[in-house]
Amino acid sequence: MNNIHRFVTLGVRNYKACRVWPSLSTLRVPSSQLVGGVCSMSSNDGGFGKETADSSQYETLRVTFEEGVRVITFNRPDKKNAINEKMFAEVPLALKVASQDPDTVITATTGAGNVYCAGNDRENFRKLTMTDTRDLLIRFFAAFIDFPKPLVALVNGASVGGGATMLPLCDAVYAKESAYILTPFSAINITAEGCSTYTFPLIMGQTKAGEILFFNKKVGAREAETLGLVTEVLPDATFLQDSKHKLLAMARLPIKSLIYTKELMRQPHRDTLHKVNVEECKRVTERLVSAVYPDKKDYDQFVKDNW
Amino acid sequence: MNNIHRFVTLGVRNYKACRVWPSLSTLRVPSSQLVGGVCSMSSNDGGFGKETADSSQYETLRVTFEEGVRVITFNRPDKKNAINEKMFAEVPLALKVASQDPDTVITATTGAGNVYCAGNDRENFRKLTMTDTRDLLIRFFAAFIDFPKPLVALVNGASVGGGATMLPLCDAVYAKESAYILTPFSAINITAEGCSTYTFPLIMGQTKAGEILFFNKKVGAREAETLGLVTEVLPDATFLQDSKHKLLAMARLPIKSLIYTKELMRQPHRDTLHKVNVEECKRVTERLVSAVYPDKKDYDQFVKDNW
Amino acid sequence: MNNIHRFVTLGVRNYKACRVWPSLSTLRVPSSQLVGGVCSMSSNDGGFGKETADSSQYETLRVTFEEGVRVITFNRPDKKNAINEKMFAEVPLALKVASQDPDTVITATTGAGNVYCAGNDRENFRKLTMTDTRDLLIRFFAAFIDFPKPLVALVNGASVGGGATMLPLCDAVYAKESAYILTPFSAINITAEGCSTYTFPLIMGQTKAGEILFFNKKVGAREAETLGLVTEVLPDATFLQDSKHKLLAMARLPIKSLIYTKELMRQPHRDTLHKVNVEECKRVTERLVSAVYPDKKDYDQFVKDNW
Repeated sequence: MNNIHRFVTLGVRNYKACRVWPSLSTLRVPSSQLVGGVCSMSSNDGGFGKETADSSQYETLRVTFEEGVRVITFNRPDKKNAINEKMFAEVPLALKVASQDPDTVITATTGAGNVYCAGNDRENFRKLTMTDTRDLLIRFFAAFIDFPKPLVALVNGASVGGGATMLPLCDAVYAKESAYILTPFSAINITAEGCSTYTFPLIMGQTKAGEILFFNKKVGAREAETLGLVTEVLPDATFLQDSKHKLLAMARLPIKSLIYTKELMRQPHRDTLHKVNVEECKRVTERLVSAVYPDKKDYDQFVKDNW
Repeated sequence: MNNIHRFVTLGVRNYKACRVWPSLSTLRVPSSQLVGGVCSMSSNDGGFGKETADSSQYETLRVTFEEGVRVITFNRPDKKNAINEKMFAEVPLALKVASQDPDTVITATTGAGNVYCAGNDRENFRKLTMTDTRDLLIRFFAAFIDFPKPLVALVNGASVGGGATMLPLCDAVYAKESAYILTPFSAINITAEGCSTYTFPLIMGQTKAGEILFFNKKVGAREAETLGLVTEVLPDATFLQDSKHKLLAMARLPIKSLIYTKELMRQPHRDTLHKVNVEECKRVTERLVSAVYPDKKDYDQFVKDNW
Repeated sequence: MNNIHRFVTLGVRNYKACRVWPSLSTLRVPSSQLVGGVCSMSSNDGGFGKETADSSQYETLRVTFEEGVRVITFNRPDKKNAINEKMFAEVPLALKVASQDPDTVITATTGAGNVYCAGNDRENFRKLTMTDTRDLLIRFFAAFIDFPKPLVALVNGASVGGGATMLPLCDAVYAKESAYILTPFSAINITAEGCSTYTFPLIMGQTKAGEILFFNKKVGAREAETLGLVTEVLPDATFLQDSKHKLLAMARLPIKSLIYTKELMRQPHRDTLHKVNVEECKRVTERLVSAVYPDKKDYDQFVKDNW
């Protein structure tokens, strides 16, 4: 892996802290706990089957499993499922568990309530040092880049900021007709992340991506499908049953074929994605502080160390 | 050409066997034989003008020529034009002849009968060693990657597996309204090839490509046009005359301009395409054996040598 | 910057002459002159506000400024705004001034009269040496590649050759409903430029790009929008007011966020874009002479030095 060398030359000195799999490997989730054990029936319409054994250890997520399909639900409905510090760490962990569970073929993400994900809950970054902020962001998106099995997003409502930029890192995106995508980075004087500066132009070209990433265009589900951000739009009324039907069919496919094809698809872009992710997270962290929290203490040192 | 170094580091030891042009150069087709000589009038509606001198040497193809347009017809209509061992070798040869013929400006591929190409005729691989299987596949797709003149696919019907993945390696694709594209790789526990793991996401983004390459989505001609896999859909009733009209107009363009622009378009992607092709063919060969022919003898040695 | 090494290995010996910013830096436009000074009200419907201080030094351009928006108007309406020698040099200069002016947030290009830009005014190249021709072309497109702020094209009519290939190097493209795009390179036996051999296939795939770059397809504004060459089509009748409204809204966004996001978007492609630009300009210069001006004297030496 010459990613290591890239990371070093990018000025990220604590490389190990920037990759999700090594840093998570110490968490040791026994495979016997992965599925089954003491499970409760799902009461959430967005979930599937039963809660997994690891589900209880998350504060911000709910994880359910049924017939090869593992659903990770962003579970802060009162905060529109905004990603706080806790969730930035828990999502990579839940993805790691999914990658290691031999029974999980398809992994899906969705949101509790009527929102998919409101993106970065910025309030939380007030407490962290800038270096920790940066590394938390890098690890979060790196977990999507490196996830080795098919990953499906069920966009059940608004998908904002990081909630939108994570979508092109998924292998299929099903969206409710009423869902929309919004990336208001420049509106708050921060910069784009989630590898969107690389993935969006690749999907739709610079002149379409510019309108979204520079100029804060709100994109409805139908237009997102035309642009290639969404695989298919499903009617609001039947979203859950339609997407469940699709996921269960996908999960009957042979896992080796899926994993190997995913690796072939990712390989030509992996190094660039990791490099872009690091560059984006360095920049957005610096913008978060200088533009959003100008009173933050460690700004000068961070900028000196990173740029 | 530092492709050589790439191939070596990829573990393909017999590099020369993996590149189509050098290996074919010993076949020496005299240029005087390329067009004309003893020709019969075409009786196939899908062909153009007269059979070429090289046409008679192919078992699985029929090649015709008229006013700068050379049409290579996949000619196993009883097998839905599936690519058998013979055809895997003959298509690169026919492309080489086309590339060397000074009178050929536009080269087109089409299928006999009402099918374009059913892809890999898997039965044939039962007879070959795995190494030979892999090299045959690599050379086949490499011939498309390196073809130096404009290449046009006339998709006159179903286009399956390798018949579909070859399309984004062409410079224009005209499809009958009733044609469709299908890549059922995971359905049979094999993996994607034809550089599709690279070209499909580049054209339509990962979230659209995932549905096709992972999840076996059947794509109609109109949708394929929207996705960028097809240049234009032509009505079934007028497909032959419409596409013939287009090809003859293209063939009046100056060849140098076409060749140089093609080289400029291919150059930024050529090394990646060859690298992806090798990786895909190694993997799909291993899958063919382990999933489709589990009794094949040389499996263990192949995997040991290649991964 | 290892661009230097690339350029050297590409055979461009006088590297400094091929990059727009260094060579222009000696022009020293005092920032006090950038906006304001003796300005006249715009009488051109296509412009914005008042002429800038630098506007008067251009023969082929008109530059106006209003509330953060700088509009560079290609101003040879009697020649359909074709780019002559003078304009090839003046556009990079006007872009440099825009990049340095702290008050300019959004820079837009448009055409005087009812045409956007007819591309290369080939007559002018009769006077230049081939080396100078090549370097003028390289610098022109390099100025678009390296422009550090959002660049918007207002396509108010026909957009031909270089007038079309510059569009994917912009961050948003608004087009009149009646506008069209045409790249008739092969029709005159020359080759594609403006990085279009790289950008067009990236946006729409090889099979759509082939129809345009090889086969001279004329693309209307609506189809260009579908293909991703145009961000949005605006009605002819309200084009000026609609696009003005958009530009003024964009110009209220914080410039740092825009510049940093643009740098993130450009970075993964910058080296390839510069390399492709050089290769294209070498080839198109050679074609211009051999195909269009076969009596030109320095052809043999140029080819010997460049290929």
